[in-house]
Amino acid sequence: MSKHGIILFGHGARDPRWAEPFERLASKLRAQRGDPVSLAFLELMSPDLPSAVAVQVDDGCDAITVVPVFFGQGGHVRRDLPEIVDKCRANHPGVRIDCATAVGEDEAVLDAVAGYCLRETNP
Amino acid sequence: MSKHGIILFGHGARDPRWAEPFERLASKLRAQRGDPVSLAFLELMSPDLPSAVAVQVDDGCDAITVVPVFFGQGGHVRRDLPEIVDKCRANHPGVRIDCATAVGEDEAVLDAVAGYCLRETNP
Repeated sequence: MSKHGIILFGHGARDPRWAEPFERLASKLRAQRGDPVSLAFLELMSPDLPSAVAVQVDDGCDAITVVPVFFGQGGHVRRDLPEIVDKCRANHPGVRIDCATAVGEDEAVLDAVAGYCLRETNP
Repeated sequence: MSKHGIILFGHGARDPRWAEPFERLASKLRAQRGDPVSLAFLELMSPDLPSAVAVQVDDGCDAITVVPVFFGQGGHVRRDLPEIVDKCRANHPGVRIDCATAVGEDEAVLDAVAGYCLRETNP
């Protein structure tokens, strides 16, 4: 049976507590779907994206969607990420690897952030 | 009449397109409240936080909430930001300056991000 993996791609940071929201996000997704959900980081944290892709391919995924968990689409999302994804595609030619737009570009995500800001100023 | 400003604090990036979601977020908030909403950045973009605070104080704000528009709380949010906020408080002793938790720690924001990921994998 084919599986469609999700990889949440974040920047990474020195402080391990930085990754907590990413872990919570992965848990929420795992509660709503049976197919693999994992994390990958650009730098400072592991695994990197090629390693996370390889694990999902070994796990039977023939489609993988990489979701950049970034607010803005700067050089990391527009330049670094496509290069890494191209390498992953070359490593796994039989697997379809798609890349979503950064989550911060999504209207519903921005609405939720706006709601948070309003709650913080009108407690 | 007293005003309560919101400053959306982001990392900043070289690519000006990176700031687009922050501008959209500010517009959403301005549509829902009359008090000032502005942006500030840690690096690579302007204004910095002390400049943004000074503008809101000149505009009549006696309370300002700084909202870190970051997913994770790493060194930038836990160490750099409090130092900058302390300087701002010292510059404007009559103004109450609060700092919210990073938006990525909010449950509703994470739910919205999870919803986006699910839509991207089940179009």
